[in-house]
Amino acid sequence: AVRDLFEELHYADAADVVQQLKPEDRTKVLQIVGDDLEPEVWSELDQDILEEVVYEIGAGTVARALAEMDSDDALAVIEELDEEDQKEVLEAMPHGERAVLMEGLSFPEDSAGRLMQRDLVAVPAFWTVGETLDYLRSDVDLPEDFYEIFVVDPKHKPLGTVPLSQLMRNKRPVRVGNLMEEQLTTIPVGTDQEEVAFIFRDRDLVSAPVVDDNGRLLGVITIDDVVDVIDEEHEEDIMRMGGVTQDEFYSSALDAAKSRVWWLVVNLGTAIVASMVIGLFSATIEQLVALAVLMPIVASMGGNAGTQTLTIAVRAIAMKELTPANAMRVVGKEIAVGAMNGVIFAILIGLATWAWFQDPALASVIAVAMIVNMVVAGLAGALIPVALDRYGADPAISSSVFLTTVTDVVGFFAFLGLAALFLLG
Amino acid sequence: AVRDLFEELHYADAADVVQQLKPEDRTKVLQIVGDDLEPEVWSELDQDILEEVVYEIGAGTVARALAEMDSDDALAVIEELDEEDQKEVLEAMPHGERAVLMEGLSFPEDSAGRLMQRDLVAVPAFWTVGETLDYLRSDVDLPEDFYEIFVVDPKHKPLGTVPLSQLMRNKRPVRVGNLMEEQLTTIPVGTDQEEVAFIFRDRDLVSAPVVDDNGRLLGVITIDDVVDVIDEEHEEDIMRMGGVTQDEFYSSALDAAKSRVWWLVVNLGTAIVASMVIGLFSATIEQLVALAVLMPIVASMGGNAGTQTLTIAVRAIAMKELTPANAMRVVGKEIAVGAMNGVIFAILIGLATWAWFQDPALASVIAVAMIVNMVVAGLAGALIPVALDRYGADPAISSSVFLTTVTDVVGFFAFLGLAALFLLG
Ligand SMILES: [Mg+2]
Ligand SMILES: [Mg+2]
Ligand SMILES: [Mg+2]
Ligand SMILES: [Mg+2]
Ligand SMILES: [Mg+2]
Ligand SMILES: [Mg+2]
Ligand SMILES: [Mg+2]
Ligand SMILES: [Mg+2]
Ligand SMILES: [Mg+2]
Ligand SMILES: [Mg+2]
Ligand SMILES: [Mg+2]
Ligand SMILES: [Mg+2]
Ligand SMILES: [Mg+2]
Repeated sequence: AVRDLFEELHYADAADVVQQLKPEDRTKVLQIVGDDLEPEVWSELDQDILEEVVYEIGAGTVARALAEMDSDDALAVIEELDEEDQKEVLEAMPHGERAVLMEGLSFPEDSAGRLMQRDLVAVPAFWTVGETLDYLRSDVDLPEDFYEIFVVDPKHKPLGTVPLSQLMRNKRPVRVGNLMEEQLTTIPVGTDQEEVAFIFRDRDLVSAPVVDDNGRLLGVITIDDVVDVIDEEHEEDIMRMGGVTQDEFYSSALDAAKSRVWWLVVNLGTAIVASMVIGLFSATIEQLVALAVLMPIVASMGGNAGTQTLTIAVRAIAMKELTPANAMRVVGKEIAVGAMNGVIFAILIGLATWAWFQDPALASVIAVAMIVNMVVAGLAGALIPVALDRYGADPAISSSVFLTTVTDVVGFFAFLGLAALFLLG
Repeated sequence: AVRDLFEELHYADAADVVQQLKPEDRTKVLQIVGDDLEPEVWSELDQDILEEVVYEIGAGTVARALAEMDSDDALAVIEELDEEDQKEVLEAMPHGERAVLMEGLSFPEDSAGRLMQRDLVAVPAFWTVGETLDYLRSDVDLPEDFYEIFVVDPKHKPLGTVPLSQLMRNKRPVRVGNLMEEQLTTIPVGTDQEEVAFIFRDRDLVSAPVVDDNGRLLGVITIDDVVDVIDEEHEEDIMRMGGVTQDEFYSSALDAAKSRVWWLVVNLGTAIVASMVIGLFSATIEQLVALAVLMPIVASMGGNAGTQTLTIAVRAIAMKELTPANAMRVVGKEIAVGAMNGVIFAILIGLATWAWFQDPALASVIAVAMIVNMVVAGLAGALIPVALDRYGADPAISSSVFLTTVTDVVGFFAFLGLAALFLLG
């Protein structure tokens, strides 16, 4: 009965069912239906679940599925596993498929070599449309799906591409060399996948040839796999900005707690720095306890305004819109935004403080501190990611901890410092 | 000279050059080369820049470019403009093209109807491969690029698709009805683009037929446009989580300041609520000023831990991995994570406080408050986005303000309240 259910499902839905099951149930179900699943189901499973499966059911089931898949999809599954599991699965595979996967794994992680598929259609420029069609109709070892054919020179260097839709609308005697698009975007095999995604997006590509150091055609990357990269890179950015090293939706609570602890340690450090700033003004606070009540407001508004700027800047860097060429203009704009909104919130919080504590001097101090902190927030929110990017760090991962350190320290220091100077003897 | 430069550039690079120019220079350059640009350049420009161009140079240049583009790309450009600019541009267009665009605009924003392209290849099931090839070679009004042909019944309802790569590897007498994939994913014309992207990703599609309420084929959505949707939706999520309503990278400082002010007003409100909680304990703080120094630590750690949970949850909801079916399990896990890390940070901050203030009672109070706030952070970080999603709100847009309100209020209340109970008479 379970077997029938899975047979009727699309592989994406089957994978969803597998993921939604409780771990114990999952093991039982997969022991029954494992070998009957469409191989694509395995490529839809989350890393944590794959490792659980290899551990609970053994490498054989996974190995048999991978042997049936396109090489790029199989590679995408196996690279998710830890080294030990990889070995186990590879050893359980037939020799030929194992060799292809081992070669794939020899390319750097997240590189074009990991994304490309080896099967492709490449023909010489002097072939005609008719000859090409006859070749496609005869040959058995074609990729599952392809969207263009490559025209290559005798050294197997790509000269251009002919989209299938172009090939089909031309008559048999036309030479493919005359049909091909020559504005060719080739991707060196070592290119990072983030750059690959950028190129596809920028050039509106559906597939692109991957070449080795000598410019020879090695494989082809297709857009369906680039969509997964885009999702992966986006997930990476969103996770990093949220202080999580990776998506742990399917991890155990213990693993999740462990992986999140370091980010929190860093934040504890910066929170302690901020409270040391407050500690400098203990005597001031002792004389005027309203300062303790109000001080988080200035710090928090700076943090929020700075995060707005940071978000725009981190995204613009990822999309290659924010570059050294326009960085200073952007910083200037963000300072201006901080100043404008600083004035607005200075007035709002000044009036609120005046009404609340009946103290116009205190109201003036918080208003000035607000302007200072929001201008600093705009400056830091733009400058920190730009600087991190320039020195090769990922601005998504570390910007926000630097930012909130700045806005907390400046927020507390400006407010309490001005209060110490102007409100007390 | 400027004209020669633009002629040699790929349209994506030409668009980058236009975007990087200062506004005054941009106007000058576009007045010179406007009509010579490849039409695709216009579809690569940011909304803010398009509006500037229409305002400075006039609708004619844009209208002439749109008339040359594929209908879906032209629609993507014109929908970015505000209503007045839309009207101006439409009025400057030839009648036929204008009608197609007006029909496109009649579909809801961000719906499949806005994404689809009208030109497509649809053939009856009894046609052979040979007849189809002859048709493709004869007909002039084909789409620029396509990846599969649709097989339709006499009422123009889609029956299946034949990928071009499939069509090409079969001999002329084979009937397309025998080649077609029947597991057909059709997209109703009103489907939201976020759902469209989800379907493409889930089913690994390259193109998909769009149908009207009667199931008749209206158009086709191709993956290159879905990639833009994915980027758009990613951008929307990242912006909303950062408290920005939209990408304002190319907006003026004044427009950016205006659009960010409302989020900051909401945050000012919550910051004031948090300081009112502190205000309840003014007398306590007056007696022990160390409380003022330490209190931001508990609140800030709760905020950071809660944001980690929130990030995982918001992403999982967007990817349809977090559903009502597993929501309670996720909430339970996050509470467990909060408890585990709460204990770790209770010990760390307890020891630090003991060393700093030489006060073991104060150290115990902050340790207990830390555990409380981190458990609450896990609970709130998971529950808030789930609840918002269930009531139809976008968890990306509003989760974080609810979360930090909870972690600030609970953080201050737990720490100062426990201190009032146990440290002072
Ligand atoms: Mg799925
Ligand atoms: Mg990968
Ligand atoms: Mg594009
Ligand atoms: Mg593939
Ligand atoms: Mg990245
Ligand atoms: Mg990366
Ligand atoms: Mg995931
Ligand atoms: Mg749109
Ligand atoms: Mg949306
Ligand atoms: Mg997929
Ligand atoms: Mg299109
Ligand atoms: Mg969304
Ligand atoms: Mg943008």
